[in-house]
Amino acid sequence: MIYLTRRERFCSAHRMFRKDWSDEENQKVFGKCSNPNWHGHNYVLWVTIKGEPSPEHGFVMNINILKQIILEKVISKIDHKNINLEVPFMKERIATTENLAVAIWNELELPIKIEGASLHCIKIEETENNSIEYYG
Amino acid sequence: MIYLTRRERFCSAHRMFRKDWSDEENQKVFGKCSNPNWHGHNYVLWVTIKGEPSPEHGFVMNINILKQIILEKVISKIDHKNINLEVPFMKERIATTENLAVAIWNELELPIKIEGASLHCIKIEETENNSIEYYG
Amino acid sequence: MIYLTRRERFCSAHRMFRKDWSDEENQKVFGKCSNPNWHGHNYVLWVTIKGEPSPEHGFVMNINILKQIILEKVISKIDHKNINLEVPFMKERIATTENLAVAIWNELELPIKIEGASLHCIKIEETENNSIEYYG
Amino acid sequence: MIYLTRRERFCSAHRMFRKDWSDEENQKVFGKCSNPNWHGHNYVLWVTIKGEPSPEHGFVMNINILKQIILEKVISKIDHKNINLEVPFMKERIATTENLAVAIWNELELPIKIEGASLHCIKIEETENNSIEYYG
Amino acid sequence: MIYLTRRERFCSAHRMFRKDWSDEENQKVFGKCSNPNWHGHNYVLWVTIKGEPSPEHGFVMNINILKQIILEKVISKIDHKNINLEVPFMKERIATTENLAVAIWNELELPIKIEGASLHCIKIEETENNSIEYYG
Amino acid sequence: MIYLTRRERFCSAHRMFRKDWSDEENQKVFGKCSNPNWHGHNYVLWVTIKGEPSPEHGFVMNINILKQIILEKVISKIDHKNINLEVPFMKERIATTENLAVAIWNELELPIKIEGASLHCIKIEETENNSIEYYG
Repeated sequence: MIYLTRRERFCSAHRMFRKDWSDEENQKVFGKCSNPNWHGHNYVLWVTIKGEPSPEHGFVMNINILKQIILEKVISKIDHKNINLEVPFMKERIATTENLAVAIWNELELPIKIEGASLHCIKIEETENNSIEYYG
Repeated sequence: MIYLTRRERFCSAHRMFRKDWSDEENQKVFGKCSNPNWHGHNYVLWVTIKGEPSPEHGFVMNINILKQIILEKVISKIDHKNINLEVPFMKERIATTENLAVAIWNELELPIKIEGASLHCIKIEETENNSIEYYG
Repeated sequence: MIYLTRRERFCSAHRMFRKDWSDEENQKVFGKCSNPNWHGHNYVLWVTIKGEPSPEHGFVMNINILKQIILEKVISKIDHKNINLEVPFMKERIATTENLAVAIWNELELPIKIEGASLHCIKIEETENNSIEYYG
Repeated sequence: MIYLTRRERFCSAHRMFRKDWSDEENQKVFGKCSNPNWHGHNYVLWVTIKGEPSPEHGFVMNINILKQIILEKVISKIDHKNINLEVPFMKERIATTENLAVAIWNELELPIKIEGASLHCIKIEETENNSIEYYG
Repeated sequence: MIYLTRRERFCSAHRMFRKDWSDEENQKVFGKCSNPNWHGHNYVLWVTIKGEPSPEHGFVMNINILKQIILEKVISKIDHKNINLEVPFMKERIATTENLAVAIWNELELPIKIEGASLHCIKIEETENNSIEYYG
Repeated sequence: MIYLTRRERFCSAHRMFRKDWSDEENQKVFGKCSNPNWHGHNYVLWVTIKGEPSPEHGFVMNINILKQIILEKVISKIDHKNINLEVPFMKERIATTENLAVAIWNELELPIKIEGASLHCIKIEETENNSIEYYG
C-alpha cells in the first residue's frame, strides 16, 4: 500500500459564530474569530490517497487526475470566497477547520474511488500553528 | 550599520475594488480578488530597522520594544479584521498589498525613530508566491 | 474522530551525557552533543489531540484552551532554560529528544483529558533534519 | 514505542516512460514528465524508524549511525545521478516516486534491523506539492 | 517606489561542463555536478519588479500579467526540460545558476518595461543552501 | 555583478549579560535571554558574496570553496559550543546576534577576498521571527 499526498491552497474569508447565539455568546466562545466583519486565511490543504501502484505505469493514481478532482470539487468552490456565505458544501455548518475537513472529505471520497484509489486523509492548516486531520 | 528584522503575522479579510467602478469593471481589473463577499489571507509582515548596536547592550534596539510597537500600532488594529471596513490606517485606500505596505510604514516610522533606530523596510507576503517591499 | 495539532516553540540549552560515564565514554557515544559547556536548539513542538467535534461549537477542543495548557505545563518551564539543570519534568533523565517527548506526553495527558479530548501524539523537531514522535 | 525521523536530500535527473510504449503513448500517460532529454528534482527523503529508547543512552538509535546507513545505501548512489540510468536499486523500474519509495525501503530495512530498530516509513517529497509515503 | 516579487518554480535537468575540457578537467572543477548522465533540481525563481503603485488600481503591476509574462518567457521553456540541450536562452552558456539568472533577466526585462514597470532582481534558489541574485 | 548566497546552520548555547551588571540589571535589560544556566538556538547563517562570474567556469566562486571557508572559519568554532565561553571570535563581546554578525563578517572577509570575490552580507536568523543583517 502506497500513500500519495497532493498539496493545494485556497484563500478564503470566514467567521465563526452561531446564528442562535447573541454577539456576546459568540464573542465569549469564538473570541476574535467571531468578528462580524469577517477575517480570512491562506488555507493549505493536503489530500492523501492510498492504493497499490499500477504495474502498468507505476502510479497509485495519475497526479494530474487527482489535481483536477481537487480543483473542480474543492478549490474552484472555496478559493477567494466567503466560507460562511458562498461555499455550497459548508452550508449550515459552523466554519471551523474541523467541519471544513469533514466537508472536503465528503466532496472527494467518491470521485477518488471512481479512479480506483481510496481517500486516506484530509489535512488542513489554517495558520502555521494550527491544523486539523480527518481520516473518515 | 546593522539591520534587524522582526516577523509578525495577521489574518484578515479584504476585497479589491473601487466604489466608483461597476461590478464588471472591478471584476475585469481585480478578477477573483474583487469578490463582493470578501476573501482573506494569512499575511506575513517583516519590519526591518537599522542603526548602530548600542555599546551598552549590543542591540540595535531591544527586540521586545520593537515587538510591542508593531503589536500596538499594526497587529492589534488589523489581525482578525476586515481591511476595507475596520482598519483605520487603510481608510479610503484600495486594499492592495502595495497600499498596505505604505500605510504600515507610516504607522511605524515615528515610534521607531523615538526609540533611536530608523525604519528601513516593510515587507508583506500575501501568499507564498506574492510579496511587496517598501523602503519609504 | 478529528485530530487537531497545535505547534509551539521553545529555545533551550542542553547536553547529552551520563554522570556515571567518563568524559571519554560520553564523547564516544554522544559526540559533539556531549560538550560540557552546553549547546542549544530552537525546538519545535507539535501536540496532536483527538476527539469528536462538539455539535455546540464545532471544535474538538477550543484551541485557546489547548494553547494555555501547553504554555503552562511545558513552554513556561522549558523555554530559555537549561534542560539538564532547570526543567522539573526532565530531572534524572538523559536529555535526548526521545526522553523529552515522553516527559512532555506525561505533562499534557491528564489536563487534555480533563477538557474532554485525548492526547494523540507528541512530535518534537530538534533540527530541520531530526525529529521524534511519541504516541503514548 | 518511539518514532525517530531523519531527513536527507538528493538532486537527481529522471524521466517517466516505458520502453515498450511509443513516444505518443508515453507522452499521453506521463505528460511533460516523459521528456526524452530528462528533467530533475530536489528530492527530500524522510526515513522514520521505531523502537524503544535504550535505557543506556536514551536513543532509539544513534542518529549518526542512521545517517551513515542512509548516506551509504541511498544518497551516495542516487544524489547527482540519473535515476533511470545509474541507480542500481531502480534498474528495470519506472522512475515514479512510488517505486522509488519501495526501492529505498528495500535498501534500508535490513541494515536498520541489524542496529536493533525497525524501519517504519519512507516518505519522499518530489515537489512541494507532491509526496509519497510507504510503510512496507 | 514599491518592490513586487512573484515566485515561480521549475524542475529541470542540467550538467555543468565545458565541451573543450576533458572529463577529468570537468570533474576536477565541477565535481559531481558534471555527471555526464545529468542530474536536476527544483529551481525556485523570484522575479522582483519596481515602480509606483498606480493611483487607478493601487498595483505596481497587475500580478496576473506579471505571472503570464514569466510563464510565457521562462517557465514554459525551461520546466521539465534539459537546460543544456533544450532551453533556447541558455544555448552556448555553461549551465550555472549565475548564467541562468542573467539569461532570465534578459528574457524578462523588456516585456516588464512594456507594462510600465522595471525589472529589479532575479533570484534563483538551486537548493535550500545555494542561491543567486542578479540586479542587471 | 552577481550575488551568491550560501546557507549554513549551527546549534549553540548562549546567554546575554554584562559581567559589570548585577543580576537584576541583566534581567531588566535582557529578560529571559539572561538566564544564568544558558539557553540556545538553531542559528541559520546566510553568507552572501559578490563578483563577476568567471568566463572560464561561470561561477562567481566555486561554492565548495566558499562552503569550506565557512566551515573552517565559523561553523567548526561555534557549532555545538557555548558562544559566551568557547568561541574565540566572540571573546569579550555581548552574545547578541548583532555582535555575532559583525564577528562572523570579520572572520570571512579576508579569506573570501583571497579567492577573488567580495563579502557582501552576513545574515543570521536566531528564531523564525528575529534576524540580523550586516553589510560591513
